[in-house]
Amino acid sequence: MPTGKLSRWDKGAERTLVSTKILEVRAVQFRHAGRGTQREFTIIHVPDWVNVIAVTPDQQVVLVKQFRFGSDDFSLELPGGMIEAGEDPVAAGVRELQEETGFGGGKVRLLGQVQPNPAIMDNHCHYVLVEGAVPSGPMDWDSDEEIEVETAPLATVLAWARSGVISHSLTIAGLMLYEGTLAR
Amino acid sequence: MPTGKLSRWDKGAERTLVSTKILEVRAVQFRHAGRGTQREFTIIHVPDWVNVIAVTPDQQVVLVKQFRFGSDDFSLELPGGMIEAGEDPVAAGVRELQEETGFGGGKVRLLGQVQPNPAIMDNHCHYVLVEGAVPSGPMDWDSDEEIEVETAPLATVLAWARSGVISHSLTIAGLMLYEGTLAR
Repeated sequence: MPTGKLSRWDKGAERTLVSTKILEVRAVQFRHAGRGTQREFTIIHVPDWVNVIAVTPDQQVVLVKQFRFGSDDFSLELPGGMIEAGEDPVAAGVRELQEETGFGGGKVRLLGQVQPNPAIMDNHCHYVLVEGAVPSGPMDWDSDEEIEVETAPLATVLAWARSGVISHSLTIAGLMLYEGTLAR
Repeated sequence: MPTGKLSRWDKGAERTLVSTKILEVRAVQFRHAGRGTQREFTIIHVPDWVNVIAVTPDQQVVLVKQFRFGSDDFSLELPGGMIEAGEDPVAAGVRELQEETGFGGGKVRLLGQVQPNPAIMDNHCHYVLVEGAVPSGPMDWDSDEEIEVETAPLATVLAWARSGVISHSLTIAGLMLYEGTLAR
């Protein structure tokens, strides 16, 4: 990205403030390459995530509804989860789709990726497109997972993403990326 | 949201694992209302954020380019920031737009909001639309902020959001919400 007069900050020492099963909060030193000033910033280190846009042969999108602890409420989202260490994003997407919804098969490809929050997080969310997805086996939920699988017509799902029925930013961003491929 | 057989989890005691200027990580007890099982989950408590879609009289969108510490790289985004305690989202949007870009004026309204990540975060990101935004005063950056203001035609910005030039999920989601209002 061309940046004109903007200066990079050089990353220095870091220390872990807290480490949990799903994230690590770090205090990281950065030095402004132009001014030489040194500051400490908080960064959340998280594994890359994957979200899956699974479209059935009759153009229905597969969604999951589940209780979310951050919002303390139910949420309607694309299937997805954390990519395991060394795991390929496409393989992770196929795995999460199968585990959470029982859907699989079809034509699979990587659609793209976004940064969930480059200001404070260091990870990417990858989007996997599964065209022609069908029920193909048993679900396999993590302990404590409890998921309601819902399919809805693509046009309806896109409308939900624009009207607040779907409110998870990563689901919305993924649906926008997918919609962009349809318009071309 | 109708949820069929999904059970809510009841929130219990919580303790702070780490607290910084921009976030607080909490370990929160939840009890499954159906099974009665009790589990501890990690939640990131963050203030609500605001992003601004500022469109000039000649249909250019105002963007900001800046170094981001999470991604350790430059990022092209909608202007925005944290909403202060008790501050109205629209007022916060107008303030952030002025501070970061010097743009202001025009017709201002709340466009909508998303949840940045309901799985692990408890906040919302609000979107403020400013139609007819013009350069209207001095910028006022926070210490350590260094911003390049860029305007680009709306169609170009929407294409950037779909092609990875813009990769911040919250900017992408906001542009999708805005695009939805144009299509109606």
